[in-house]
Amino acid sequence: MENFAKEVFSRESRYESGNLLIAGIPTEALAREYGTPLYVLDQKDFFFRAESWKSSLERHFGPQAGTVYYAAKAFVCVEVAKWVDQLGLGIDVCTGGEMAVVRAANFPAERIQVHGNNKSEKEIADALAIGAALVIDSFHEIERASRLAHSAGKIADVFLRITPGVEAHTHEFIATAHEDVKFGFSLASGAAWRAIEEVERASSLRLIGLHSHIGSQIFSGDGFTLAIQRVIGLLAEYRDHFDRQIPQLDLGGGFGIAYLPGEFSVDPDQILASMSEVVKSECATHSLNIPTISIEPGRAIVGPTTTTLYTVGTTKDVALDNGVTRRYVAVDGGMSDNIRPALYGADYHALLANRVSGASPISTRIVGKHCESGDIIIRDIDLPSDIGPGDILAIPATGAYGRSMASNYNHLPRPAVIAVIDGGARTILRRESEKDLLALDVSENVRKLL
Amino acid sequence: MENFAKEVFSRESRYESGNLLIAGIPTEALAREYGTPLYVLDQKDFFFRAESWKSSLERHFGPQAGTVYYAAKAFVCVEVAKWVDQLGLGIDVCTGGEMAVVRAANFPAERIQVHGNNKSEKEIADALAIGAALVIDSFHEIERASRLAHSAGKIADVFLRITPGVEAHTHEFIATAHEDVKFGFSLASGAAWRAIEEVERASSLRLIGLHSHIGSQIFSGDGFTLAIQRVIGLLAEYRDHFDRQIPQLDLGGGFGIAYLPGEFSVDPDQILASMSEVVKSECATHSLNIPTISIEPGRAIVGPTTTTLYTVGTTKDVALDNGVTRRYVAVDGGMSDNIRPALYGADYHALLANRVSGASPISTRIVGKHCESGDIIIRDIDLPSDIGPGDILAIPATGAYGRSMASNYNHLPRPAVIAVIDGGARTILRRESEKDLLALDVSENVRKLL
Repeated sequence: MENFAKEVFSRESRYESGNLLIAGIPTEALAREYGTPLYVLDQKDFFFRAESWKSSLERHFGPQAGTVYYAAKAFVCVEVAKWVDQLGLGIDVCTGGEMAVVRAANFPAERIQVHGNNKSEKEIADALAIGAALVIDSFHEIERASRLAHSAGKIADVFLRITPGVEAHTHEFIATAHEDVKFGFSLASGAAWRAIEEVERASSLRLIGLHSHIGSQIFSGDGFTLAIQRVIGLLAEYRDHFDRQIPQLDLGGGFGIAYLPGEFSVDPDQILASMSEVVKSECATHSLNIPTISIEPGRAIVGPTTTTLYTVGTTKDVALDNGVTRRYVAVDGGMSDNIRPALYGADYHALLANRVSGASPISTRIVGKHCESGDIIIRDIDLPSDIGPGDILAIPATGAYGRSMASNYNHLPRPAVIAVIDGGARTILRRESEKDLLALDVSENVRKLL
Repeated sequence: MENFAKEVFSRESRYESGNLLIAGIPTEALAREYGTPLYVLDQKDFFFRAESWKSSLERHFGPQAGTVYYAAKAFVCVEVAKWVDQLGLGIDVCTGGEMAVVRAANFPAERIQVHGNNKSEKEIADALAIGAALVIDSFHEIERASRLAHSAGKIADVFLRITPGVEAHTHEFIATAHEDVKFGFSLASGAAWRAIEEVERASSLRLIGLHSHIGSQIFSGDGFTLAIQRVIGLLAEYRDHFDRQIPQLDLGGGFGIAYLPGEFSVDPDQILASMSEVVKSECATHSLNIPTISIEPGRAIVGPTTTTLYTVGTTKDVALDNGVTRRYVAVDGGMSDNIRPALYGADYHALLANRVSGASPISTRIVGKHCESGDIIIRDIDLPSDIGPGDILAIPATGAYGRSMASNYNHLPRPAVIAVIDGGARTILRRESEKDLLALDVSENVRKLL
């Protein structure tokens, strides 16, 4: 049985005589060398995807191409932040913690964008201090940013996050009058316009752009089209009222990737071609200069690069009520290293990575080692019926929101992330140890607070 | 407006002139002293609940009362493990990591029980080495435990985890022939009996008990009744076949607690009275001696003890399509410190903890600061309409599966856990720092693996 589906594995993944190789290295060797569970990040693939988004943006927007901000929330560590810098992309962070990581990588402040619906005053002040661009998300934040910039004697470049009433996911989008989300300023309610007026009144803030982000795992351009139309409408309203243009427009991220065989990650060239057409025609309609266009792919860059390797520990058969047998295959990780199946009902693919099997397929559920029945990695997949203890399973497309949302549930140490390239490997985020798990335990004296 | 609902707060919580006090300390003072988000654990409440389960078990099972194993997965740190020991309870762990914590607390091995559907050989060997009881979960594990005990020259005391075809949750239970879960040996399929035979054949294993665990957040005894009937049926079968009795029966945990006003945590005395009746009558029916009965409350001990304190950062109103306004109140934590609302759709209560408000209530959604629209702590709750930046919100009943499932999503540092008692407070698990967030980042040289 052969279920290597090229389209869900990283670009430097190959399947040869029953072995999955990444960057030329048999994954079995990686599992032996580094232990499992293990996140294996295909570095060339990361570079390829990051560059594709950058070159596609430049191709379709020419001199009006702004910045490709890598969305750090998908996955970031110091090494990855260095790559992103080296490739000339920007980075979008949304907390002081993410900021700490990119600062540790000496990421240039002028390519850092700071997001967040509820930034602390410290987060705002730190962003202002280094001169990173703020994406302002609420009226409270206009006041805070304005006050903090003023007292720092600065004029801060800010974006306003607009909710254009478009919510996109997979192949559909919903157009709503009132977006029932915590983020941003609603266009339809007039909040967006009021926010613009408040920023204009704040002498310590300079409105350099509007920002819109419409969803996640988006495959169709239709949602983007509507969002672009609405936000460019707002740019025109601004021009009509203030007699000048807001120079930048950030269209956010949410570009879909392949998780299952037969799916295909969004092609940057294709989606940016279509977005560029819409931007150009809308600007023409409103007689606007084309603004500088930025985007924020996160998952679309790092998601497909990473494969999780697990070792099988136990198997068990359950006779279902319909007469079918379900094979439970338990691996040495689970919901602590990949919460997406439990959290979102997300689907993944799996491959027996260490040997050829001629065994007939059986309906299999891949589960983890947590003390919880919902600890499921793949609900139902056909896998060879001879899979057993010691086998290596590879789960592709775990680069985004895998390690980044990992927990220590059941005190499982979080797995290492290794980068592989040209037959070589190195740890970029090390595996937690038992010592790490105990690092926060303290024995403190009681303080009387009465 | 007054929404202090005593039944969902820890026992030493009081509400006075707009202030929530825990162990006599105004939570505002705790927030100021320790920062927010903050998990505040009411130590007396923990002791009270742990002792209630222990004394109720002893009251209803007399000399046949076994051990109350505190389920570490709900929440454990070294200090809490010490309390559990000090109170004379046992502890149930399900990974090497949880074992490391209880070992760091010098927990006596004879009161440690080791769970897990996919224990590693190291986890099994470590448990055998210290003489903790293994709860065997699969045929693979019978072989492993038997082999490892044999090579260590030991006879290991083991339980077998039986799935009795009962799945209980809240006020309902489902009886199934084939339990479609990863855990244990199915009674109906005959797997349980085969497992008993295999353990009997293994000269290095001694079968000292059966184990059954039927669900979580259970409020009705009916599921337990059926499970007890079935498992005691198996004890009788064993006695009939082997002409002696399996001495112990562990009935697991899953006892429900109050999350919302009007709910009440399961009363140990009441549920154990009813379980004891069933055990006694079933044993009488089968002419069995009453086995030693153990249980495993986790959430039921720690869940109600802990209140999370958050500081409000921003608010925002959204006009919904039905004409109603939804107030978004964003706090300084979110899905990283409490994943249960997003993961299970779990409901929580909230209280304005730092002042009296006479403002009329408004339909409110409490959200966190993560870059994700699903980052919701409470979907819909009526709260005073004047709640704003700087206010302290208290979310009760976050002791179980809060800190224990916490992540660093968006690189948010995990909050501290402080224990409060008699007007005093101390940190038992410290807040993560930026330095902690960067502790796993490494800069390694490439290793050629080809």
